[in-house]
Amino acid sequence: MPDETPLDRPDYHDRVARLRAELSARGLHGFIIPRSDEHQGEDVPACSERLLWISGFGGTAGTAIVMVDKAAIFVDGRYTLQVRDQVAEDLFAYRHLIEEPPKTWLLETVGPGQKIAFDPWLMTRNQVARYQAAVEKAGGELVAVDDNPLDAVWLDRPPAPKATIRAHGLEYTGLESSVKRERVAETLSREGLDAVVLGAPDSIAWLLNVRGGDLPNAPQPLSFAIVNKNTKVEWFVDPDKPEEGLGQFLGPDVIRHEPGQLGAALDALGKSGASVGLNANMEPEWIHRRLKSSGATVRMVGDPCALPKAIKTSVELAGMRSAHLRDAVAVVRFLHWLDTVASRQSVTEIDASDQLEAFRRENHMFRGLSFPTISAAAANGAIVHYRATAKTNKTLEQGSLYLVDSGAQYPDGTTDVTRTIAIGEPTGEMAENFTRVLKGHIAIADARFPKGTTGSQLDPFARRALWEIGLDYDHGTGHGVGSYLNVHEGPHRIAKGPNAVALQPGMIISNEPGYYKTGAYGIRIENLVAVTGIDPPSGAEREMYGFETLTLAPIDLRLVVPSLLDETEVNWLDSYHLRVREGLLPLLANKGEDVQNWLVDATQPVTATRALIMS
Amino acid sequence: MPDETPLDRPDYHDRVARLRAELSARGLHGFIIPRSDEHQGEDVPACSERLLWISGFGGTAGTAIVMVDKAAIFVDGRYTLQVRDQVAEDLFAYRHLIEEPPKTWLLETVGPGQKIAFDPWLMTRNQVARYQAAVEKAGGELVAVDDNPLDAVWLDRPPAPKATIRAHGLEYTGLESSVKRERVAETLSREGLDAVVLGAPDSIAWLLNVRGGDLPNAPQPLSFAIVNKNTKVEWFVDPDKPEEGLGQFLGPDVIRHEPGQLGAALDALGKSGASVGLNANMEPEWIHRRLKSSGATVRMVGDPCALPKAIKTSVELAGMRSAHLRDAVAVVRFLHWLDTVASRQSVTEIDASDQLEAFRRENHMFRGLSFPTISAAAANGAIVHYRATAKTNKTLEQGSLYLVDSGAQYPDGTTDVTRTIAIGEPTGEMAENFTRVLKGHIAIADARFPKGTTGSQLDPFARRALWEIGLDYDHGTGHGVGSYLNVHEGPHRIAKGPNAVALQPGMIISNEPGYYKTGAYGIRIENLVAVTGIDPPSGAEREMYGFETLTLAPIDLRLVVPSLLDETEVNWLDSYHLRVREGLLPLLANKGEDVQNWLVDATQPVTATRALIMS
Repeated sequence: MPDETPLDRPDYHDRVARLRAELSARGLHGFIIPRSDEHQGEDVPACSERLLWISGFGGTAGTAIVMVDKAAIFVDGRYTLQVRDQVAEDLFAYRHLIEEPPKTWLLETVGPGQKIAFDPWLMTRNQVARYQAAVEKAGGELVAVDDNPLDAVWLDRPPAPKATIRAHGLEYTGLESSVKRERVAETLSREGLDAVVLGAPDSIAWLLNVRGGDLPNAPQPLSFAIVNKNTKVEWFVDPDKPEEGLGQFLGPDVIRHEPGQLGAALDALGKSGASVGLNANMEPEWIHRRLKSSGATVRMVGDPCALPKAIKTSVELAGMRSAHLRDAVAVVRFLHWLDTVASRQSVTEIDASDQLEAFRRENHMFRGLSFPTISAAAANGAIVHYRATAKTNKTLEQGSLYLVDSGAQYPDGTTDVTRTIAIGEPTGEMAENFTRVLKGHIAIADARFPKGTTGSQLDPFARRALWEIGLDYDHGTGHGVGSYLNVHEGPHRIAKGPNAVALQPGMIISNEPGYYKTGAYGIRIENLVAVTGIDPPSGAEREMYGFETLTLAPIDLRLVVPSLLDETEVNWLDSYHLRVREGLLPLLANKGEDVQNWLVDATQPVTATRALIMS
Repeated sequence: MPDETPLDRPDYHDRVARLRAELSARGLHGFIIPRSDEHQGEDVPACSERLLWISGFGGTAGTAIVMVDKAAIFVDGRYTLQVRDQVAEDLFAYRHLIEEPPKTWLLETVGPGQKIAFDPWLMTRNQVARYQAAVEKAGGELVAVDDNPLDAVWLDRPPAPKATIRAHGLEYTGLESSVKRERVAETLSREGLDAVVLGAPDSIAWLLNVRGGDLPNAPQPLSFAIVNKNTKVEWFVDPDKPEEGLGQFLGPDVIRHEPGQLGAALDALGKSGASVGLNANMEPEWIHRRLKSSGATVRMVGDPCALPKAIKTSVELAGMRSAHLRDAVAVVRFLHWLDTVASRQSVTEIDASDQLEAFRRENHMFRGLSFPTISAAAANGAIVHYRATAKTNKTLEQGSLYLVDSGAQYPDGTTDVTRTIAIGEPTGEMAENFTRVLKGHIAIADARFPKGTTGSQLDPFARRALWEIGLDYDHGTGHGVGSYLNVHEGPHRIAKGPNAVALQPGMIISNEPGYYKTGAYGIRIENLVAVTGIDPPSGAEREMYGFETLTLAPIDLRLVVPSLLDETEVNWLDSYHLRVREGLLPLLANKGEDVQNWLVDATQPVTATRALIMS
């Protein structure tokens, strides 16, 4: 997202005024504008950037409420600084989404009898229930609108995306769509459901073995689907999107309809007295209301694709390994470039992320970034979800840390890697804290745990070395990652909060502890790992799992304090670096001797250094 | 519980036949007999041992269902062996409570129109809801009985206990009951409740600063109480129980009533339109129904005493330290006795636990055991909730492990300690596994963690060293402990399952990892610890907590493999043993030089040994 200078900045006052006029003309007193679209993903297409259009706020989560005489924007802790920068203070009051939730503001703001409107396509059952309770407590009424009043005044609204939908073959998925549909249908039968409605783009893409391009960072088409217990799927998708021959690939049990036919199909389910599953945190309230009014029994359930999608097939795992080797070539070339160029000439955060993307683009299988790169120098590294703009763009200075979190989409896999690099000479404190983050990273990478263990149980291992000196970090340790799908995917995660999903072989998850010193620097070390069964040690009584690290890139040894590592940790680090070197040297053969020499240097064993210090 | 030889075994066939006749006479087809009494505690008085009376089963948890023509008993994994030993197979089918729950059995067993009865005093709202769903699914009807049909045929049923209730003064509690009542009343106001009904004996004892003796191992009176938001308490308690002068101690805001008056008081709450809180897992269904029928608004809430009771006052913490020193004198004398006597002469499990209890009894402040001692030799140690009987009583043999888990009640504190002792020469495997359990124990004892951390987050630290070699244990790592109250108390715990209660300074919890090799031996090392604030290390950014270990008793160094411990672990072990030695030597002054010499030997630093091995 480019920075906007005052001159080319849209007139948000005019936009809000036009929305207010539209609300008044309709007899409405307020309107809720979530950042989400109909599919509740992190990414939305340009035509759905309603929150950005009305307020200028460009974060990936947030909500505005525009009343006729006042307005507020609600963002979480990641965005409290950014919202001040991007949103006009005289238009929107800034509110902390958790500490000063919409509920409180609505109670203070809504008068008796006032009508607060929302677009039922953009909010889920659970969201609507919360807003309804708050508005009604204030004496007002929450009303669903048939057509979005903001869209009515957004005159140059971009058209909906129409990217081609292509078959994603067995060579990438390892499992026929028909088999996946049978498994989902089994879940429906077990739950006593006749059908389930899906709106999550990655679930539909996974289930049908298709990929699209409607979103900036995730290769998915936007559509809806109804999966029936007889394994047939009704797919509501723009007829212009599928590539030629897709119908043949999908077979007769995937019946395509115009998106506008969804309502009629829900009515038909209702009239047949069907029990229909919906995810109360995912599918639009519009679908819920339509099903209810047509007489269906609606049951709130989890997404039946979430768990099978998370457990990768052996073909997907092999693809992930290939994708990571390929991605690592770009990352290593970038790290070498950083070490050789950034010390000689002035390099900014944006220069650096452009260079990294350029290296990635050189590979013909590169299909795009899996998320906007976080390229953060010095104090910007302490902003966990930092995104460089022309205004914030820092130069990488000697004696500082540089944090780069990036990833790519390849047809055989999705990558996500963070490295923290010493620019010039780091301080002792930086090195100690880096080493403690590394100890946490190794504790996860090297963990062995019995079947049934959740990511919540492993999370403390990643924090222990920081806790010892009174430090911690305020984000999760790991998120699931899709296979040429979303870079954030459930249902498992490694985090402080309870997560009841046991880790199972085939699941992919990030391992990314960090430490952030506000106003000074940020540290994060992230690899993707796959859950694997491990050979039981002699005498083992439990079925044991561990992790296979997929990401291959040197960890900056200039930031490692060997005396803080124990023998197991040193062994892990050395054998990881040996894998990195042996895996990548052959692939760097045509990239110049410089890069190869750099890699050999960057992957020297710590054992020798440590023995020297210890003796 | 003494072992019963066939000759003096009650005639359970006759008992079941008499219950069946009673059911038939009342037009009932079945009756549910839980082990719990009206107060849902682990302990019940003799008059409430209905499950034991009808079946012979002596475990602390279980349920029988007697139908006119068949019967089943449901017990959890701890008791699957014991139930086979104690309960006649031709009377009761054995069922696993979790894997073959009553729900399934009722569905198979109950016929259309059949009436399955339960005593609403003995079951909670949540239990009744589950049984009701199951019985109704089978086409039957779940009916509450006014008087218990089992009691009607239990002719020699013991009378209800009538132990004296005494004031438990400020010197033990550190906080006036009036202050506690104000805090609970604040919780009620915050939750919008007019009153809450309490049935948990320890909550009432804590709130009113009284102790009693109605239960074998917990010094509590059995009673009910209504706490009003105006801080007044209506206490429904046998008028014969309170000691003279207790009314003065309690003051005018604690109004005593006959137990039989509870119903009328609930009616009055209902008539006044009160909102009343009940714990759906604790208070009897009888109370719930009475409140509902009288027109009260019933809200299911947590016990408002649970959290403040768990956070001990500084006076309670000081008392716990004194109680632990006192208790340790008995434990050390016992361990010395074991080492000197058990190697020379034949000692059985029961000999050993009798000897330990005798040492404890010598102290004038001893008020009883806090739970029946687990005294388990060799393979019996692998039975987590083992209780020696004449039939199972093993002799401590050379080359085996002996596990003893015991505790006592003192007016200033409750203790709970487990030690595992080598009898003769242990095998290398025993020592390795003991050392790994010890590593887990130290990982908890020595943990530092930020404010907000739960016991669930710490639990994996206790298991990691076992996971490394494919081992684990199937019980929690720690339970809360009361102050001269229950040895098991909530709401916090250290366990695999999610527990949302953050650990706070003043909470006491056990630290008891273990390992159990079925048919061979059991290992458990248990100390009680208190959560404490710790001095922040320089540069710390978070408020950090740690543990103070309260229990003082040597850990058997003959079972420790020093080379498996890292430096931090050795330091913890040595400084713990130094504390044990310095704390106890003065208290053993009049117990003979032998014991003192033994203690000095048993608490030698490991550092020296280890340095020797490492060099």
